Amino acid sequence: MAAAAGVSTAAVSQAVNGTGRISEATRRRVLDAAAELGWSPSASATALRRARTRTIALVVRRPTDVLGADPHFSELITGLEGELAPRGYGLLLHLVADMAQESALYERLVAEGRIDGAVLTDARADDPRPQLLRGLGLPAVLLGASDPASPVPGVGLGQQGAGVREAAAHLLELGHRRLAYIAGPADLVHTGLRRAAFEEALAEAGLRPVAVRHTDFTEEAAVAVTEELLSLPDRPTALVFPNDSMAVCGIGTAQRGGFRVPEEVSVVGYDNLPLGRWLHPRLTTVDQQVQRVGAAAARALLAQCGENVPPPVLDGRPRLVVRESTGPLPSAP
Amino acid sequence: MAAAAGVSTAAVSQAVNGTGRISEATRRRVLDAAAELGWSPSASATALRRARTRTIALVVRRPTDVLGADPHFSELITGLEGELAPRGYGLLLHLVADMAQESALYERLVAEGRIDGAVLTDARADDPRPQLLRGLGLPAVLLGASDPASPVPGVGLGQQGAGVREAAAHLLELGHRRLAYIAGPADLVHTGLRRAAFEEALAEAGLRPVAVRHTDFTEEAAVAVTEELLSLPDRPTALVFPNDSMAVCGIGTAQRGGFRVPEEVSVVGYDNLPLGRWLHPRLTTVDQQVQRVGAAAARALLAQCGENVPPPVLDGRPRLVVRESTGPLPSAP
Repeated sequence: MAAAAGVSTAAVSQAVNGTGRISEATRRRVLDAAAELGWSPSASATALRRARTRTIALVVRRPTDVLGADPHFSELITGLEGELAPRGYGLLLHLVADMAQESALYERLVAEGRIDGAVLTDARADDPRPQLLRGLGLPAVLLGASDPASPVPGVGLGQQGAGVREAAAHLLELGHRRLAYIAGPADLVHTGLRRAAFEEALAEAGLRPVAVRHTDFTEEAAVAVTEELLSLPDRPTALVFPNDSMAVCGIGTAQRGGFRVPEEVSVVGYDNLPLGRWLHPRLTTVDQQVQRVGAAAARALLAQCGENVPPPVLDGRPRLVVRESTGPLPSAP
Repeated sequence: MAAAAGVSTAAVSQAVNGTGRISEATRRRVLDAAAELGWSPSASATALRRARTRTIALVVRRPTDVLGADPHFSELITGLEGELAPRGYGLLLHLVADMAQESALYERLVAEGRIDGAVLTDARADDPRPQLLRGLGLPAVLLGASDPASPVPGVGLGQQGAGVREAAAHLLELGHRRLAYIAGPADLVHTGLRRAAFEEALAEAGLRPVAVRHTDFTEEAAVAVTEELLSLPDRPTALVFPNDSMAVCGIGTAQRGGFRVPEEVSVVGYDNLPLGRWLHPRLTTVDQQVQRVGAAAARALLAQCGENVPPPVLDGRPRLVVRESTGPLPSAP
């Protein structure tokens, strides 16, 4: 190729890798020669110089079966695709078991020039990914967390505890005093934020949750926790779940156990998935606008990739949507 | 590069593209020289010769909002990922509006060397994709359909109408005579197969459905159809839906309208999603083993890509899972 272009092999290397100080004309001549040799028309060859794959990575650090059970990810993907699809971008989905696998995967995908950017989910305290991705030079956004010191911009609603705080206030206003909080895994940032908000709201009323249970987000966990809590001698009169799937399971499990919802047990979900509108009773839940957050994340990332997109608009916060699965405290028998 | 390797530029081209008749030693020498120039470690360079991207495409020809509403796709992706993730493969998800966009996308992805294979969903009569993908030389599997004449192997359960047939038989045995069938879009192969099976089962009992409604699979459609059917003067006593999300909406809508399920209306879903086990009443549904079909599709495709995987095992057929949302015909008032 150096011979074909009439330049040194070092110049070929520099032209190909986009390094060094060769002139644009030389670079052009090398790449033209490469084209004649059959390299250039392929976007893979382009990817060698600068990633432009029209592919965004979404790496999910969950067991595969949770992906199926929790519609949250479908909602997120829907929001992302709403911005990616019209621009011809695809979403490269990888499931990994742990953070080490996730980090190794970004390194491989960047080394192989397969992606233009990444959407990071499930922010953790001491998250190694922002530093890693900055080191790799990969555009990225982090869902949920918004740490101004982080090299990766956060995309999400502000005041992450606001929805759960509203849920607690709503239940207190209905007269509930025995509230249980079912949480996600303890190592997730949003788990901590929401739990703290719930406990603070109760503390302001001089109360503490009668129970807090961490779960792995599965429906099986929702059933087991609901059965356990409703069999307590001093059972809670209100259950607050970390997602809608679990809340729906909680309602079904309570009804099956002979408890009327909301007459005897109030139930609150989280995510405001479409299904909750149509159930009977309709689900009271926290709307965290998963689709809109996904859309905003896609726009923020596309802008980093040099696409001309409208700025992401997310001026809201999580809000409680009161429907039918919450009601006044049952009067004492 | 030719200079570095001490060969002709034609040999470089042949080595790089894997074409021509150069010896393995020459090819090796060229690639070693390329490596020294900084090309070789990148898988993108390899992709120029032969796609080996560890990426499988899943192109979904649906509006983005259906993806969020219908957990079917989460289940399918879960099944695919169960086989792909442990082998380091990713799933490249693209949403497209129509078949023309879908075809153009395969052409681009193959031209750019971005994928090793594709999983095709939503088989249609006169499906152009199998011929297209054969022409592109892209490994592929087609979910559901199993046309022996097709150049793309089908992966799916046999006897696609079997589950709906069982559902009809179950309802007839419970004494129902006024059955309504809610179907998916009319242009999908499985819609036709299932509807035909349902109508045949009723015909054998000397009956016809009191109503058949085609829908776009959305929850809104489920609510509207349920309201419409239950307000008919000669309303159906049993509703058979094309997916579980719609069935759950149907149950909620019936209950909201004052109908007890199953005492006054029986409801059958399709897909056997996890949620149905926990609702009250638990959902009677057709198990088409979406996750297992996804896993089998992944294995079939990985084998075509040269991976050493166990053969896909799918010896079943869709089967009715009887739970609590179906019951005996209500006795006449």
